[in-house]
Amino acid sequence: MTRVAAFAGSLRSGSYNRGLLRAAVELAPEEMTIEVVEIGGVPLFNADLEAQGDPEPVAAFKRAIGAADGLLIATPEYNLGVPGVTKNAIDWASRPPRNSVLNGKPVAVMGATPGMGGTARGQSQLRQAFVFTNSFAMPQPEVLVRRASELFDAEGRLIDEPTRAHLGKFLAAFAAWIERVGGD
Amino acid sequence: MTRVAAFAGSLRSGSYNRGLLRAAVELAPEEMTIEVVEIGGVPLFNADLEAQGDPEPVAAFKRAIGAADGLLIATPEYNLGVPGVTKNAIDWASRPPRNSVLNGKPVAVMGATPGMGGTARGQSQLRQAFVFTNSFAMPQPEVLVRRASELFDAEGRLIDEPTRAHLGKFLAAFAAWIERVGGD
Amino acid sequence: MTRVAAFAGSLRSGSYNRGLLRAAVELAPEEMTIEVVEIGGVPLFNADLEAQGDPEPVAAFKRAIGAADGLLIATPEYNLGVPGVTKNAIDWASRPPRNSVLNGKPVAVMGATPGMGGTARGQSQLRQAFVFTNSFAMPQPEVLVRRASELFDAEGRLIDEPTRAHLGKFLAAFAAWIERVGGD
Amino acid sequence: MTRVAAFAGSLRSGSYNRGLLRAAVELAPEEMTIEVVEIGGVPLFNADLEAQGDPEPVAAFKRAIGAADGLLIATPEYNLGVPGVTKNAIDWASRPPRNSVLNGKPVAVMGATPGMGGTARGQSQLRQAFVFTNSFAMPQPEVLVRRASELFDAEGRLIDEPTRAHLGKFLAAFAAWIERVGGD
Repeated sequence: MTRVAAFAGSLRSGSYNRGLLRAAVELAPEEMTIEVVEIGGVPLFNADLEAQGDPEPVAAFKRAIGAADGLLIATPEYNLGVPGVTKNAIDWASRPPRNSVLNGKPVAVMGATPGMGGTARGQSQLRQAFVFTNSFAMPQPEVLVRRASELFDAEGRLIDEPTRAHLGKFLAAFAAWIERVGGD
Repeated sequence: MTRVAAFAGSLRSGSYNRGLLRAAVELAPEEMTIEVVEIGGVPLFNADLEAQGDPEPVAAFKRAIGAADGLLIATPEYNLGVPGVTKNAIDWASRPPRNSVLNGKPVAVMGATPGMGGTARGQSQLRQAFVFTNSFAMPQPEVLVRRASELFDAEGRLIDEPTRAHLGKFLAAFAAWIERVGGD
Repeated sequence: MTRVAAFAGSLRSGSYNRGLLRAAVELAPEEMTIEVVEIGGVPLFNADLEAQGDPEPVAAFKRAIGAADGLLIATPEYNLGVPGVTKNAIDWASRPPRNSVLNGKPVAVMGATPGMGGTARGQSQLRQAFVFTNSFAMPQPEVLVRRASELFDAEGRLIDEPTRAHLGKFLAAFAAWIERVGGD
Repeated sequence: MTRVAAFAGSLRSGSYNRGLLRAAVELAPEEMTIEVVEIGGVPLFNADLEAQGDPEPVAAFKRAIGAADGLLIATPEYNLGVPGVTKNAIDWASRPPRNSVLNGKPVAVMGATPGMGGTARGQSQLRQAFVFTNSFAMPQPEVLVRRASELFDAEGRLIDEPTRAHLGKFLAAFAAWIERVGGD
């Protein structure tokens, strides 16, 4: 079995990116399990706070990543970039530098927006972090979900079949990517 | 008088970027006042929370920007990008879209790192947000403070004279930039 | 009158971005003239070549920018970034550093793609160059033309009315931007 | 043996990046050969030209990449971004999309600047292209050579021992990266 830790970079309960992540859990290939981690309790990064020991939500987040074979992120885009919420979680997980749970970790990024952007520019910024953390971000395929309001139902379930099919292929590719680049 | 609101995108008490901001307050040209706003109380952005009304630290942050002629940001760089802390503050301030306190606001960005990066890549990401918010980010000069530990004393005071001189020129250029692009 | 120099970052004769630029010439506000400069003869940048004097197509390109009140660029996106063709033209124009024809020049960027990207990521990279050249890039509105094949006719004429209307507003905003930030 | 194709994204004969590439050839681990490809004859990308068949310098460039186990790039930074020269070579090599010689190819990027930037921002842009081309860009270590004029001798030979040692480690890491992610 391939174990994937996952989080959504939005704290809004009705977030499309949370819905996208729920769809991923459903559509994961047979040999993959996706464990969703909540980051709502992760505080803003503060090195003084960190010096006293990771707060429990941070420790739990880092444990989940550390125990997994790969990390999956569903992120919104705010202001043409990675949201502070998403980046802040990564900033915590990236510590200590060069020896973090992100080091050598296979990563996949996806995102959804109500508009036409599809999180393209936010994902580009987020990928840059993984250069520093020495994580192995899967280049293709990309999941850029545009016009999300037309693709999810009122309960936040992804109902658009082409998008579901693409998401399934993306997850299968991530399984193959983990197989290719993961491990010691 | 030109009124500038300013914040540091680091919550660490001994932060070099806080020190850089204190130096800016000292070195501001005569006709400029720099008011430093604390963002330690600004929570992680959550549209559900926002729907109940801006939390007071957010409201105060937005009021300070709204009342100022320009915005000055001192930001660290985490993981080759803008810190979640810095971006999260901008994500709050950017709301509501198209009609936020950042709309049409002159902005200047500076940053300091212990290493050789000087926040070059973090600043590039941060500038991208100002395209969306329709803020007017000053292109030159840049302030990229490298090897900060050699330039600040034990009390966090910027003591390197060439850096102080460059910072003074940067602030004078920002005053001219506000004069050029600011106003209705 | 406001004089704008413009170029398309594609050498393909049937390029959508050339078509977008032709539409801009038609839709320019009354007080604005747009002069299109061909960059097909601009060689790949080579400092050894430059040391012998700018080749004539480069010199002409730089003269056109130097004589204009603003610069308008229509660029494709290749490989999620600014095309080499577009960037190469800017690399020539940026010389000599700190004293180039781009220094203090108002700039507007637009772009078209056959797919859904709309050159979002290419424009972001291109804007970064203008930080270095101290050019004044207009933040909003953006022109991201998606699915270009549905919006142009067989002769490469932009026929989609909403896109034409948006382009007209963009050019009016650029005229106002030049008025705001341009001049000595 | 691991075969690496390599090019420098500068056409200047005395280029530091050409020197960096020559040093890489010298410092390659025993099991790695580095073949330097000249891109001086690669024209500006033009899809009309491409439709007539790749010009010979392009075909040779693509053949060299196709035959290699990995691609090594030494790039300058112009205007805070990837030079047009470097990007243009990649734009040619990226064709046809989804089935190019860059697809699935391990890639390493390094760069040198006379100043303090070290090509940090140029490399970030270049890496973004490899997301689209589905190339496998090595995240760490990075080679950012700053103040190049102090590290090379008058003949353009890299003489700074710490930099040579770091370059050697970088190449050994690239060999391990190719071993990890390369192959079918």
